[in-house]
Amino acid sequence: MLTTRFSTCFGLHSPIALAPMAMASGGALTAACADAGTLGLLGGGYGDLVWVQKEHALALSLLQQRSGALSRFGCGFITWRLDEDASALDWLLDQPHTPAALMLSFGDPRPYAARIAQRGIPLICQIQRTQQLSECLEAGASVIVAQGIEAGGHGMNSMDGRSTFSLVPEIADLLQQQSPSTLLLAAGGIADGRGLAAALMLGADGVLIGTRFWATRESLASQAAVNEALNANGDDTARSIIFDILRRKNWPPVFNFRALRNQLHQQWEPRIPELICSPEPAQRAYDAGVAAADFTRAHVTVGEAVGLLHDYPGAAELIARIHQQATTLMLR
Amino acid sequence: MLTTRFSTCFGLHSPIALAPMAMASGGALTAACADAGTLGLLGGGYGDLVWVQKEHALALSLLQQRSGALSRFGCGFITWRLDEDASALDWLLDQPHTPAALMLSFGDPRPYAARIAQRGIPLICQIQRTQQLSECLEAGASVIVAQGIEAGGHGMNSMDGRSTFSLVPEIADLLQQQSPSTLLLAAGGIADGRGLAAALMLGADGVLIGTRFWATRESLASQAAVNEALNANGDDTARSIIFDILRRKNWPPVFNFRALRNQLHQQWEPRIPELICSPEPAQRAYDAGVAAADFTRAHVTVGEAVGLLHDYPGAAELIARIHQQATTLMLR
Repeated sequence: MLTTRFSTCFGLHSPIALAPMAMASGGALTAACADAGTLGLLGGGYGDLVWVQKEHALALSLLQQRSGALSRFGCGFITWRLDEDASALDWLLDQPHTPAALMLSFGDPRPYAARIAQRGIPLICQIQRTQQLSECLEAGASVIVAQGIEAGGHGMNSMDGRSTFSLVPEIADLLQQQSPSTLLLAAGGIADGRGLAAALMLGADGVLIGTRFWATRESLASQAAVNEALNANGDDTARSIIFDILRRKNWPPVFNFRALRNQLHQQWEPRIPELICSPEPAQRAYDAGVAAADFTRAHVTVGEAVGLLHDYPGAAELIARIHQQATTLMLR
Repeated sequence: MLTTRFSTCFGLHSPIALAPMAMASGGALTAACADAGTLGLLGGGYGDLVWVQKEHALALSLLQQRSGALSRFGCGFITWRLDEDASALDWLLDQPHTPAALMLSFGDPRPYAARIAQRGIPLICQIQRTQQLSECLEAGASVIVAQGIEAGGHGMNSMDGRSTFSLVPEIADLLQQQSPSTLLLAAGGIADGRGLAAALMLGADGVLIGTRFWATRESLASQAAVNEALNANGDDTARSIIFDILRRKNWPPVFNFRALRNQLHQQWEPRIPELICSPEPAQRAYDAGVAAADFTRAHVTVGEAVGLLHDYPGAAELIARIHQQATTLMLR
């Protein structure tokens, strides 16, 4: 039941991966997901070596008595940041524990593929357009994640990006033709068993879930931020470059960021050219919001699926619920 | 098999509705869909009375020997255009044939609800955000269509709009709480049995399909335009106001238009403010493109699901294929 090629390959009880969310998917959440039979991917994010070392150690310590779960513990990185500083990846590849998988998103994975393959680690590559598929196949990806623009956090801008519902079957068809042994996960908009069942119908072998895991007890997201999210619905998020400017993140222009469309975001929506030219006043307002944990100014990183969140469960309970709901739907 | 509340209510063999696409869903396509056991909705579009009279008469003549199919023949209109000129709706409501349903999209349906209800015609309301749901329930909608931004043609702009994958389950939850007898269709990105099966998993009672029916033999879309679409993939469409400006359509600013991102579209993408201020040169280029059936300039109205189109079937064959594929997936 709910056995797919993805769950079989990675020894999972449910065909679910934790999205490696920077500043949310720390050691505790990653270990909880691995322990509950899904693929736990540590949010290596921008490749902060000290953070990765600390959270990696925490996950290892939580999982060390559970050899089965240890084999479901991997990590993800932002690829363009590795181009600037790959020290966290280098460190990870030198550790005695072999990651269950390494996931690369937002950039060309090919420069990193050989070293990852040498360690025998499966490579997971996240894409947002069919156009990006070929470089991932060249890199020898074992798994493709097809991420729709409904996803929270970084993704492709709306003009160039795709939505989950049509991207997944189109990538499934391309993989069938070009590389049938490569697995496919759907990402973006998936927060419950309905989403998992739908993704499998669309041709995916499993799902990568962000927002829903972001709002669990083991997540590093602050409870205040989670409370904001639980009071929002899916209409309340937007994708733009505003928070990347406010956070002084130098993202390649093709990518931008979905978060709650809070007061500061709405204030700058009609004035983005001005924000680009003179970001300092807005950045000061943002910094003050972060310092005060005031989410009318600080960002709350969630996708459209935030409208499907109504509680703040533990990861294991959540996984059991998603699995059960998907199974029930598919047996109906 | 594939019996849902929607198929039962409307006497359908498959829980599928033809999107009432202006200039594509004419009498022939509408009749073919109704005859094949789906809900055929004539593309009343901007409410051109002469066009509606002609295509309505064609559909009636094709269906007159088939009383069962006649009961699956309805029509759709663009609501904000009715606010300017409702003569086609008025005419339709005076005809002896009672439409199977009337669908209203893009505007407030409440001013038209009473007259439609007086004739006993089920009202279908299309929305793009959860925010729009309450006015549709006030209007007494029998069916809500949740349309994601991946849809072709008009839809909500990307900043405000939602994607199908998260919009459908969120609306399903709201209906469950607020109006459980109201039915729900998913629209945007659905082109095959995978999409139908996925939509049902997400909580929809059926699907509204545009792009895939646009490229059928009974559609009024020109074969040259269909050929362009069959050579495109889902990466090749974009949502913007460009074609509305080029076509001199006075749409409310919250809505815009998805079509193939052809040469003329790409040329104006970085210069939209200039296009708004001085549209005439671009409009002349567009007009010349339309006159010459040159789709590097003329628009090809398709959604992201264009990447799932690989042939040019008749509508009945297509419906049988979608039904069969969805059934197989759901029984697997």
